[in-house]
Amino acid sequence: MLALYFDGQPTIKELPQPEPGPGEVLVSVHLAGICRTDLEVLKGYHGFKGVMGHEFVGEVAAPEDSPWLGQRVAGEITIGCGVCDLCRRGLAGHCRQRQVLGLKDHDGAFAPYLRLPAANLHAVDPEVPDVFAVFTEPLAAALRVLEAAPVSPSARVLVVGDGSLGLQISWVLALSGAEVHLAGHHPEHLALARPRGVATFLSADLPPGDYDIVVEASGSPSGLELALTRVRPRGTVVMKSTYVGHYPLDPAVLVVPEVSLVGCRCGPFAGALRLLRDGRVDPRPLINRIFPLARGLEALAWAQRPGVLKVLLDCREGD
Amino acid sequence: MLALYFDGQPTIKELPQPEPGPGEVLVSVHLAGICRTDLEVLKGYHGFKGVMGHEFVGEVAAPEDSPWLGQRVAGEITIGCGVCDLCRRGLAGHCRQRQVLGLKDHDGAFAPYLRLPAANLHAVDPEVPDVFAVFTEPLAAALRVLEAAPVSPSARVLVVGDGSLGLQISWVLALSGAEVHLAGHHPEHLALARPRGVATFLSADLPPGDYDIVVEASGSPSGLELALTRVRPRGTVVMKSTYVGHYPLDPAVLVVPEVSLVGCRCGPFAGALRLLRDGRVDPRPLINRIFPLARGLEALAWAQRPGVLKVLLDCREGD
Repeated sequence: MLALYFDGQPTIKELPQPEPGPGEVLVSVHLAGICRTDLEVLKGYHGFKGVMGHEFVGEVAAPEDSPWLGQRVAGEITIGCGVCDLCRRGLAGHCRQRQVLGLKDHDGAFAPYLRLPAANLHAVDPEVPDVFAVFTEPLAAALRVLEAAPVSPSARVLVVGDGSLGLQISWVLALSGAEVHLAGHHPEHLALARPRGVATFLSADLPPGDYDIVVEASGSPSGLELALTRVRPRGTVVMKSTYVGHYPLDPAVLVVPEVSLVGCRCGPFAGALRLLRDGRVDPRPLINRIFPLARGLEALAWAQRPGVLKVLLDCREGD
Repeated sequence: MLALYFDGQPTIKELPQPEPGPGEVLVSVHLAGICRTDLEVLKGYHGFKGVMGHEFVGEVAAPEDSPWLGQRVAGEITIGCGVCDLCRRGLAGHCRQRQVLGLKDHDGAFAPYLRLPAANLHAVDPEVPDVFAVFTEPLAAALRVLEAAPVSPSARVLVVGDGSLGLQISWVLALSGAEVHLAGHHPEHLALARPRGVATFLSADLPPGDYDIVVEASGSPSGLELALTRVRPRGTVVMKSTYVGHYPLDPAVLVVPEVSLVGCRCGPFAGALRLLRDGRVDPRPLINRIFPLARGLEALAWAQRPGVLKVLLDCREGD
């Protein structure tokens, strides 16, 4: 099979079809999404070598005796060892020897086939189109905000950052009934949030006032600065994005107003699939282009253009 | 009355006895404690001008018609405006126009008399000696850790910093049944924690392993560094101490392991008074010396000596 492989440089490379091991299935990938983390992989930040990609929807193609055979699926991306203290405490996502699909020691989704433990799979309802289901992983990451900082319907919440993740976070927060504001730098992105009940502002024009919860999804130190400036005493700043570099944190900014800074990462797939199934979240406005996998290098370049939200790869062989 | 006054320099100064306003009482101060924050005031960090001091125990001396008259009391140190949005939400401790006893716009406790709203008072039971009750405020601040990060009896907790606050935090955490470790630089301080069920280590000798909760009470960037290194994935770092300067925070250190960083400050007086009343916490080993208020300048100098935990001032007139 031809796959999009990274080894210091991205290449389209002929590779053997993966062989599922014990407890694993082979997934025929339909669609895969290019994430900002994939662009970081290109810069070498994760030290990853292998088939790229972790956002996907596909269909289980093997083994023949799997109860999952023929089922369309999304898949959780972290593979725990199952025996360390964290796995045994139900924190497999933080396993000390974890593999991560397309990010750490496990070939990813920018290929016609991938292998994954059956335990990682979530069934996709037949009525959910692939272009919806491919957003399960990023939408789950957005929903994780609601686990990190329970949002009441009377809360005032600010999301900082109008990229793909920031938009999805603002959408799911608005579903809670809370008053949700989104601050960003791209009027054309902010426009995607307004029809979903989100009040939007260019960051420089954010009106005065503070927020019960601020979600930092901008991927820049200035976003964290804005978040810490705008959170109310005893409020919570949820940190979703990483970036290269350090933020100069004054401890008094947390201690005196008793603010919490909560890191959060992957989220609940089942909740994301329910919202996609029920039409509560329509991710299609995020899609900028769909490239066939064979043009994967072009797709990676396209995903790095300013203002591009989501680029998808069609990974079906022969497409 | 003679009081310990700060106006760029600490001085012992003759001042008029304070006049309690509406809703306020006059407290005759028995004992007051010198806190690390008072030493920061000396360096000008808080921009404070007035009578210093916020840790005290005393007796209500006026007005004559107060139901508190003659009652021995401890007092919460923050005075809210009562009308701002935060006061109305029950967050008077974070009032936007707050005064703070001996720290912000309100004369403090290093004097024979202070004034305070009656709403700030907590009665001290007759069986609690003054040398216990004067620790109500710092012990409440230690108890706040349990509100910031609920500690289960099966938790492993590390306290970083073996100063007066770190020791009190380790004591109250050990009362929860949790496994509590204390890391510091002073063998003679660590020795005060061991008899209370706390395992102690010189910071450089801390054995491998991570913790569900780490409390940073060292007042130094290296303490926060140790805390972030030793907290487990999805664990909590409670920040108790501020210091001048900035910590270079790598956002990935919070986001990837989904760690929470929780600032916390003042705490529940009622709980502290119960623990002191019932003998669950005996603060006397922390006391290094008691000076009469007239020798307050000497006391401030003494409190800055290395290894000194707590210096008290006897504020009764004529002593």
